Amino acid sequence: MRHFIIDCDTAEDDIFSLFLLLHKGMKVHGITVVEGNVSFPVEVRNALWASDFARRYFKVDLKVYPGMERPLIKGFRTVENVHGKGGIGDSALETNAKPEPKHAVDFILETADRYPGELEFLAISPLTNLAMAYLKDKSLPEKIGKVWVMGGTINGHGNITPAAEYNIWVDPDAAKLVFNAGFDITMVAWDLITQYTVNEEWEEIKRMNTEMSQLYINFYTHYRNFAMTRQKMRGNPHPDLITTAVALDQSVATRVERQFVDVENCDCLTRGATVIDYLGVLGKEPNVNVVYEIDRGKFIAMLLDLLGGQRV
Amino acid sequence: MRHFIIDCDTAEDDIFSLFLLLHKGMKVHGITVVEGNVSFPVEVRNALWASDFARRYFKVDLKVYPGMERPLIKGFRTVENVHGKGGIGDSALETNAKPEPKHAVDFILETADRYPGELEFLAISPLTNLAMAYLKDKSLPEKIGKVWVMGGTINGHGNITPAAEYNIWVDPDAAKLVFNAGFDITMVAWDLITQYTVNEEWEEIKRMNTEMSQLYINFYTHYRNFAMTRQKMRGNPHPDLITTAVALDQSVATRVERQFVDVENCDCLTRGATVIDYLGVLGKEPNVNVVYEIDRGKFIAMLLDLLGGQRV
Amino acid sequence: MRHFIIDCDTAEDDIFSLFLLLHKGMKVHGITVVEGNVSFPVEVRNALWASDFARRYFKVDLKVYPGMERPLIKGFRTVENVHGKGGIGDSALETNAKPEPKHAVDFILETADRYPGELEFLAISPLTNLAMAYLKDKSLPEKIGKVWVMGGTINGHGNITPAAEYNIWVDPDAAKLVFNAGFDITMVAWDLITQYTVNEEWEEIKRMNTEMSQLYINFYTHYRNFAMTRQKMRGNPHPDLITTAVALDQSVATRVERQFVDVENCDCLTRGATVIDYLGVLGKEPNVNVVYEIDRGKFIAMLLDLLGGQRV
Amino acid sequence: MRHFIIDCDTAEDDIFSLFLLLHKGMKVHGITVVEGNVSFPVEVRNALWASDFARRYFKVDLKVYPGMERPLIKGFRTVENVHGKGGIGDSALETNAKPEPKHAVDFILETADRYPGELEFLAISPLTNLAMAYLKDKSLPEKIGKVWVMGGTINGHGNITPAAEYNIWVDPDAAKLVFNAGFDITMVAWDLITQYTVNEEWEEIKRMNTEMSQLYINFYTHYRNFAMTRQKMRGNPHPDLITTAVALDQSVATRVERQFVDVENCDCLTRGATVIDYLGVLGKEPNVNVVYEIDRGKFIAMLLDLLGGQRV
Repeated sequence: MRHFIIDCDTAEDDIFSLFLLLHKGMKVHGITVVEGNVSFPVEVRNALWASDFARRYFKVDLKVYPGMERPLIKGFRTVENVHGKGGIGDSALETNAKPEPKHAVDFILETADRYPGELEFLAISPLTNLAMAYLKDKSLPEKIGKVWVMGGTINGHGNITPAAEYNIWVDPDAAKLVFNAGFDITMVAWDLITQYTVNEEWEEIKRMNTEMSQLYINFYTHYRNFAMTRQKMRGNPHPDLITTAVALDQSVATRVERQFVDVENCDCLTRGATVIDYLGVLGKEPNVNVVYEIDRGKFIAMLLDLLGGQRV
Repeated sequence: MRHFIIDCDTAEDDIFSLFLLLHKGMKVHGITVVEGNVSFPVEVRNALWASDFARRYFKVDLKVYPGMERPLIKGFRTVENVHGKGGIGDSALETNAKPEPKHAVDFILETADRYPGELEFLAISPLTNLAMAYLKDKSLPEKIGKVWVMGGTINGHGNITPAAEYNIWVDPDAAKLVFNAGFDITMVAWDLITQYTVNEEWEEIKRMNTEMSQLYINFYTHYRNFAMTRQKMRGNPHPDLITTAVALDQSVATRVERQFVDVENCDCLTRGATVIDYLGVLGKEPNVNVVYEIDRGKFIAMLLDLLGGQRV
Repeated sequence: MRHFIIDCDTAEDDIFSLFLLLHKGMKVHGITVVEGNVSFPVEVRNALWASDFARRYFKVDLKVYPGMERPLIKGFRTVENVHGKGGIGDSALETNAKPEPKHAVDFILETADRYPGELEFLAISPLTNLAMAYLKDKSLPEKIGKVWVMGGTINGHGNITPAAEYNIWVDPDAAKLVFNAGFDITMVAWDLITQYTVNEEWEEIKRMNTEMSQLYINFYTHYRNFAMTRQKMRGNPHPDLITTAVALDQSVATRVERQFVDVENCDCLTRGATVIDYLGVLGKEPNVNVVYEIDRGKFIAMLLDLLGGQRV
Repeated sequence: MRHFIIDCDTAEDDIFSLFLLLHKGMKVHGITVVEGNVSFPVEVRNALWASDFARRYFKVDLKVYPGMERPLIKGFRTVENVHGKGGIGDSALETNAKPEPKHAVDFILETADRYPGELEFLAISPLTNLAMAYLKDKSLPEKIGKVWVMGGTINGHGNITPAAEYNIWVDPDAAKLVFNAGFDITMVAWDLITQYTVNEEWEEIKRMNTEMSQLYINFYTHYRNFAMTRQKMRGNPHPDLITTAVALDQSVATRVERQFVDVENCDCLTRGATVIDYLGVLGKEPNVNVVYEIDRGKFIAMLLDLLGGQRV
């Protein structure tokens, strides 16, 4: 059995990433919430809603641990323009569930102690929670088996700024700490996943008429519109879900290179840029498995398999 | 009764600051240790030795909570050249005592919850522990009554660099967080305390011949030599002890101004400089009680009273 | 007739860029020399050698104006490892010619005044000379017709550092000034031209057996070896020569987009990175024609035409 | 005979500095104008007015050379709130005189070549003109005999920001270049001269009833009001005039130390701060004569002597 913590700034793609983990039978020990996409209370409520849904749909019990509500040092901004006020569009998810009183940082540390070398941390979010856990326990990199990061760029094309991808930009200090801490990191970059959007499949998904496919259409409509009009993409991207797919099945990533990756954490034009030393001029040991190519077919098959699960 | 946590990068002046608190009957709930003056294990051992000594001498029970071993984001260096390899000169203090397993950050948070509005935090050290506690609980500033900070400069004259005082320089990010968090801070600057060194009193203290005075001479000889030869001071300075004296008796500070103080946290020439907006041009609310003058007589009297305690 | 100044940090590709301009009948008013590839005296001597050669071979008179020997503010380093100690390999070019006493900056200003709106500035080098000229006369952007820049990246893949191309990295302050000054700039990026190396043609050129082809083989052997072994390229790249080809015939550039480009001039990991606002999020007017695709056939034909000129 | 260039961002204290030089019989070869206090055209016009006045009053011929209108790299702002819209209060000085067509930078270089080792540069202004001249000719530091700089702080108390004095803040890059270039620099700091304001003498000067004293009262009223109300000074300060007095008679400076001084040129909280390595920890050769004490009596005597010159 594989043991996961999923770290979310809970919008639509975070929720479906959780569902894909559960659909594939992973043991998810908890959802940790971190500052990012939308306001923190909305992120927590979305995570609680998702755990309610999961209880019914996947028959699993899932706890939600609120973590860092802000980056370590710098300021940031949420992106309701991208994901809608509710993170799944402009409407709000409702739930009566309550989060755990334990801080996400302590939950991460305790879970890593319980499953040394086995725990996998799926970071589809700014890296503040993981950085804080590492700051509290510098032996954490030895205890966590894998860190899957949605973040950064491989070709210098960001989204929140021309040079930076949002998750890294939100807390470049945390990202710099995590990338240099010794974790076993696999990085799925923004300008990689933009090549593998859901486009033609949108109509096919609409016709599926399952509970999950209806939820998909419902949750992603805002994001799809934003991506296709403001970011000029063909279809809607799946940064978190592709990262999850790679974590679940590494053969989804068809080209991966082990390289040294650092993060620009200055307060400047390129704040949050990931710098990949592809020529080896920085003289540092490679620290990240950088994904350069995806088997789109495999990814889409995993997605459709999730969506097709139970007909309405 | 006043409730204290004393936060130490445990060298000679930290230890005597603790003793002064105890001598004056303060309730010290714990010693938290943070990166700084000397290697972290030596700092922890010194704190344990001091708690052993306090148990016997002051009849109090004191626990030691190791905290952050490194600054939040940046690198730093210890200054064994200043305080000696042992932090009290080059020899080492020995003890069999063990620190608490609880992390200093959690101890701070729990103690603040236990004594809301009453706890005083004596930070004679880099501010990493307090910053981490604040990052975990942003309501901490409302719970801690007072923060007494030894750090920074009032006239731009540092010690570790021309522009920066050591405690702030070690972790300027932590200092910036703490100074901007809303704590009730009083700041005792390096270039203030250099005006109030122990000079002529040194020989007087030598003649006192008490256990405490002998310890004083023993512990401060290295630091005194460094200060008088390398820093061209008249006598040995007492950054931590003067801060403690101010905390104990605010009339020791004869001129205090409430001003806005910020911290330069760039990676640059002036890293760690404190910037006091004495002209009010930054348009921010004052956040720090800045001490500009000390009643040297009162401070020396407190010191001699401590040292004269029990004749050998 | 088109009027050019060619600004060189004179190595092999600078010299052949000059020759291509002359071969195509352009009026080259002078060679201005700037800090960069190799030591400044070698750069000046190479430019003088090239003007000697041009006098004989192309029957034109060419003057050399030494300019800035250092970046505006920051330090830099030369790259003899790339181009050889002599800039055309490790051997030295000899000449008795002397440079003009006039400073390149003044020569640029005077020539721009003489041909208002017509002068074209071919900057295959760090932008210090042009930035200095602009600093002396802020109306310069209106007087210079075109600025052709070899520099920067379009996909975040540099050469001197992972994030930065050499010409921009050497003087990011100058580049930032120039890019924001209002010049009509066309930019040919490093990670564009690496796609259009001379590879199979190398043997063909060897067999040409003309004076120019022999010079080519002679001058480029060091650079080709470096590029193929250290930079893992297929063949030798022609950053300057492709830029010159684009300047000579804009149809060589088959895809060009007008975008806002800025330069990271912090002293940090990403110093010298070019940031292209391809999503328009910075809200600035486009200032650069960014070349995204080259007609390799046209470029190679221009090169071979130059090299085939006069059989030995 | 001593040879001077006076470099001005021409406000009231610049004009009286010029008059003091002339009153003491110095040969002033030209006024160079640089960006700073007020709008550049006003600065140039003020310099021209002063040269008109000097022609009549001191019987000397003085030329005005406009120079840099902006800092090398960064942005800045003028301070009409301090000096009035006209630089001598809110009214404007009128003149029909025209500035020289030669750029200040070239005038500096040519004059330095004409009087090698003898020329003194009185920089009571941002250092952009001198930095540009140095960038054009790196041997300039050997040719200029003395550089007298009004700028920086000795105790970390600035004026434009808490950490920075205006002249250095306007162009910290230029200042950093100049301070590290090898010039023989004497620095008169802002937080030095604030200790030597004209206070009681104001009424005495009013009663003098000479042309010069009337001009003084007229020109300084705005600045005096600003200093006494907004900067909480006792009287009006004379940053430029004290620097000029020190240049004229070094015994005006009663304590001077030769130290290494550097400039913070980051885009950050402490931009433009001067950093004096008074403890020698940076390991650099001293490069500046830093003035720490003034003979106020001598300075005031020089001022009154100038003002009392010719009764109305």
